[in-house]
Amino acid sequence: MMTGKTPFAPRSSVEQVEEGHTLSPRFDADGLLPVVTTEAAGGDVLMLGYMNAEALAKTIETGEAHYFSRSRQVLWHKGATSGLVQRVVDLRIDDDQDAVWLKVEVAGSGASCHVGYRSCFYRTIPTGQPPSPDLELIYREDEKTFDPQQVYGDAPNPTKL
Amino acid sequence: MMTGKTPFAPRSSVEQVEEGHTLSPRFDADGLLPVVTTEAAGGDVLMLGYMNAEALAKTIETGEAHYFSRSRQVLWHKGATSGLVQRVVDLRIDDDQDAVWLKVEVAGSGASCHVGYRSCFYRTIPTGQPPSPDLELIYREDEKTFDPQQVYGDAPNPTKL
Repeated sequence: MMTGKTPFAPRSSVEQVEEGHTLSPRFDADGLLPVVTTEAAGGDVLMLGYMNAEALAKTIETGEAHYFSRSRQVLWHKGATSGLVQRVVDLRIDDDQDAVWLKVEVAGSGASCHVGYRSCFYRTIPTGQPPSPDLELIYREDEKTFDPQQVYGDAPNPTKL
Repeated sequence: MMTGKTPFAPRSSVEQVEEGHTLSPRFDADGLLPVVTTEAAGGDVLMLGYMNAEALAKTIETGEAHYFSRSRQVLWHKGATSGLVQRVVDLRIDDDQDAVWLKVEVAGSGASCHVGYRSCFYRTIPTGQPPSPDLELIYREDEKTFDPQQVYGDAPNPTKL
């Protein structure tokens, strides 16, 4: 855990945060900020995760994606269990510095989703009429890239109802 | 405001949420879920926003991006002030249905950032060594696509310190 002094610059004005050259991230009440992870080749969104200050610092230092696992409440080096490490090709911060965009190359099968798909966003919501409980999602990936049971074994599923 | 009956299906099991065809989104304690918005042509991440149930329903119904503005605490039809409407090309939900990916075509100048840039993620964080307050962000967009003062006038800046 990082304690005491932060490795980031203070947020002293809106102009500095939006138009400056200093990294001054804003973490939410839980100490987290959301992270969009896209595939460098192709640009698909692979996942949406979260970082705390330590995960952001580790990602910057190592060039490999580190997140904070909300389900397990620990620093999470993506791929440590599955081998599907995400190498950072570009790391961006947004205008008000409360969100991060990671452009990555994924090791191994190239998957980033614990269900086994390449992207977590494997289903489309059809548009053009008001939603109803009968709405049917459309699958955009035909098959899983790995067997989650084989990779994760009996580890608890992070999905919460 | 939507009240009473939700237009979405209930979350009855992890399997149904992850592997089913029903839309059963999970909103956080504030009633929101994060939304990644990417440019259909090119795949760049334009912004990270939030939707409440009403914004998600409106987006599905109209095929135009609606968000919930956290700074103004209102439903926000993106482009209503600036003309920079986001037409939805694809709308995806993630594995555990607590995040959305919007692939859009933007009207007008094509910008999506209130500071005036095309993408909110116009600065890169350099990687390869531990962060420090001296770290210098690298600009990835050379010029603004519009003058925020002209478009938004005296509206309060949404960036919080």
